Amino acid sequence: MKLDLKTELSRRSAAPQTVVPVILSGGSGTRLWPVSRESFPKQFWPLASEMPLIAETALRTFGGEFAPPMIVCNEAHRFMVAEQMRESGVTGARIVLEPVGRNSAPAIAAAALLLAQDDPQAVICMMAADAAIPDGPALRQALLTAAEVARTGMVVTLGIHPTKPETGFGYIEMGKPLEKTPQAHALTRFIEKPDLALAEKLIATGGVLWNSGIFVFTVSTLLEELQAHAPHVLATVRKAVEARTIDLDFIRLGREAFAACPNISLDYAVAEHTTRAAVVPVNFHWSDVGSWSALWDLGEKDGAGNVAVGDVLLEDAQNCYVRSDGMLTAVLGLDDAVVVVTEDAVLAAHKDHAQDVKKIVERLKAAKRPEATTHNLSYRPWGHYEVLILGDRFQVKRIVVKAGEKLSLQSHFHRAEHWVVVEGTAIVTRDEDEILVRENESIYLPLGCKHRLYNPGRIPLSLIEVQSGAYLGEDDIVRYEDTYGRS
Amino acid sequence: MKLDLKTELSRRSAAPQTVVPVILSGGSGTRLWPVSRESFPKQFWPLASEMPLIAETALRTFGGEFAPPMIVCNEAHRFMVAEQMRESGVTGARIVLEPVGRNSAPAIAAAALLLAQDDPQAVICMMAADAAIPDGPALRQALLTAAEVARTGMVVTLGIHPTKPETGFGYIEMGKPLEKTPQAHALTRFIEKPDLALAEKLIATGGVLWNSGIFVFTVSTLLEELQAHAPHVLATVRKAVEARTIDLDFIRLGREAFAACPNISLDYAVAEHTTRAAVVPVNFHWSDVGSWSALWDLGEKDGAGNVAVGDVLLEDAQNCYVRSDGMLTAVLGLDDAVVVVTEDAVLAAHKDHAQDVKKIVERLKAAKRPEATTHNLSYRPWGHYEVLILGDRFQVKRIVVKAGEKLSLQSHFHRAEHWVVVEGTAIVTRDEDEILVRENESIYLPLGCKHRLYNPGRIPLSLIEVQSGAYLGEDDIVRYEDTYGRS
Repeated sequence: MKLDLKTELSRRSAAPQTVVPVILSGGSGTRLWPVSRESFPKQFWPLASEMPLIAETALRTFGGEFAPPMIVCNEAHRFMVAEQMRESGVTGARIVLEPVGRNSAPAIAAAALLLAQDDPQAVICMMAADAAIPDGPALRQALLTAAEVARTGMVVTLGIHPTKPETGFGYIEMGKPLEKTPQAHALTRFIEKPDLALAEKLIATGGVLWNSGIFVFTVSTLLEELQAHAPHVLATVRKAVEARTIDLDFIRLGREAFAACPNISLDYAVAEHTTRAAVVPVNFHWSDVGSWSALWDLGEKDGAGNVAVGDVLLEDAQNCYVRSDGMLTAVLGLDDAVVVVTEDAVLAAHKDHAQDVKKIVERLKAAKRPEATTHNLSYRPWGHYEVLILGDRFQVKRIVVKAGEKLSLQSHFHRAEHWVVVEGTAIVTRDEDEILVRENESIYLPLGCKHRLYNPGRIPLSLIEVQSGAYLGEDDIVRYEDTYGRS
Repeated sequence: MKLDLKTELSRRSAAPQTVVPVILSGGSGTRLWPVSRESFPKQFWPLASEMPLIAETALRTFGGEFAPPMIVCNEAHRFMVAEQMRESGVTGARIVLEPVGRNSAPAIAAAALLLAQDDPQAVICMMAADAAIPDGPALRQALLTAAEVARTGMVVTLGIHPTKPETGFGYIEMGKPLEKTPQAHALTRFIEKPDLALAEKLIATGGVLWNSGIFVFTVSTLLEELQAHAPHVLATVRKAVEARTIDLDFIRLGREAFAACPNISLDYAVAEHTTRAAVVPVNFHWSDVGSWSALWDLGEKDGAGNVAVGDVLLEDAQNCYVRSDGMLTAVLGLDDAVVVVTEDAVLAAHKDHAQDVKKIVERLKAAKRPEATTHNLSYRPWGHYEVLILGDRFQVKRIVVKAGEKLSLQSHFHRAEHWVVVEGTAIVTRDEDEILVRENESIYLPLGCKHRLYNPGRIPLSLIEVQSGAYLGEDDIVRYEDTYGRS
């Protein structure tokens, strides 16, 4: 494709606004249990650094040549996504809510249809929310190279030069360099996750790369390819986009249409069928953060090869990954072990069994154990709460309300509540009254009363809630008014 | 020694009252951390069965031919001992308090001096509070045989027929059977804990037994032997006994004298020097419950050789000991591992390193970590409390007061308290007032007020305490009155 000067200049000036990172926040990271759970999956945890994976991902391509990101996530995670973007300083992100998870093809199709309304020639950089790529500048450079190629109508993948015969990733077979942009190559074949023998053979043969799952294409290329190879996906997602609603700052896709969409990855729906595939081979370090042993690989090791995160004490341990999100954890005389401690569950495993953590989660789900899917610590738009103790007829929570935030006006049929303010100041609505409750003061909310908690201050409000009653489930709530659209 | 009929008959009828189990509750069971800690050591935990080891020990020789036990314990443990005896139905126990731990010779000397006041010919069965002996009747039979021999003036040990070349125990060399009671043998030599080579050699040679640490002698024999081989121990303990005070139902030894006593075991002070040693060899199963691997030995195993206690899930695990005193604990793909989870600490170790757990505890002590020595759950004469959360300027506890019990009248300089009753009924003294607080009601205790908590009811009183203040240590307490002698 030959460009005249005018077109070229116009493209260059437009470019900074039209390369859009689209971050897919699907998946529940089951193999990283007990930290990662459906209610708070791995992308929201600081696993590879001090920052949550999704914030790392968004920051890597924030600013400069890139437009603000579009994030496609489970609607249950919307406040976490918004909060983590706010905390990491990623402004202008558009957050698209999936009523149900349907894998990457429907998610990216929805993003493309929404972006098409502004600019059908915008370039999409599709990335998972939960990978670790320490070298951000190298990624940006590779994406911009891929964007060049994408503007010629190609479906471009980033391929990682393999460092070992890994069996946990798919592979890509590389063809000849492209004429115009020789940093990119033709892509001759996708190869599914191989067994060890095949992986070794592939690497020995050369010319193969790991499939990073990072795709770059223009909106129009993707829509054409979906129309050609997965028309049903495109049609159902189009209905879901047409039926979207705006919910605060969120774009909520139509539930019925989206639920009707097949569960299918972009690899299966498009990448393996397209005749216009290209690959940009890259050398930077990339991890899918897929298991505890991947985190051991990523982590900083002591002299005995141990990675220790949190309140950990090691004695005669070697090549272990030990992580505690709270209590003291001592490891003695173990080699190649993974020990992970959260507020309500402990995993002790051999590193070679890291892929089987999902078996544990399946067994816990079958036994309907809450530890399989939810954490004691729950994030809400107004702050968070933590269950301290759940007794027979009582429950104690610590509740933290962010400055200026307000819970819904609510009542309960089965429980009364005591609130003791331990930090900050609260304004409590109790039926007809508004009561200021200061540090070290308390208030009683009898069963059935309409009440609301508001932090009018400049610092977080922290209180201890003691509930008593015959039934203490979160679903005993009637909401009359809510700032966050939940009533 | 020849006895005439009259003496013999009188001895027989007196016998049921004069064989006294003396249970020594010393030691802190460091190798069973994180469950066993100084503040709540292993003898108070249900480790070998559903019952605490000390209760098992007391029950094994309770009733029938045995007088009620005398228990010698650390004064900090007095309410736990009393409570566990009450719970297990062991009535009439006398509890002797050591102001400081000084090993077994001073402890048994104190018991002997106290018993001498009633009956210098009483037979003492000295036993550690923390061994496991599943076959109670066999133990009783062996003790009664030993008592026969003891009445002839001998120092009798129970020796266990060894089942493997154990290096964790001392050994005993057995001589010829005694003429009068051929079930007992002369004891020719004590052998200190051997290395593996010597242990194997000893067992191959035959005629050796494990030293159980269970000794049987009359009060007068022991006092004579102490006078002969450890006169300084006897003299200082005699002063401590003379300086004793009676504290509720407890016999508290004189602090100064007892502290001046050397720290020495009965083995070193007497048994290795006496010329009148005998041994009763026994075949029953005995364990000193000395390490997590000993508990694995003792425990009931699944088909893969795992012992699982509490909320435990195993997948591809073999020959592991896994114990959780609370939260869900999953073990995956590990062999020969020990995983122990308490409310505030986790230990994951290789079974072969079970003896090195004390290294962990030493490191924690050096770092002044509370987890080294104390538990979140604290037992008091009136009930117990548990720290739910300790924040910067607040702390939340769950407090349980037994029916009819009363805390001390107290005040704090640095904290105010809120109490929310979640079960039962409280009478709260607050300065001049007495206030009835019912289930689901709360009360505020401002900083500095004199207050007292009383459970007047028939069921336990359970309340949530929220403390706030600049300093929240247990030592910020002024006690004005106390039912349990602590003011």
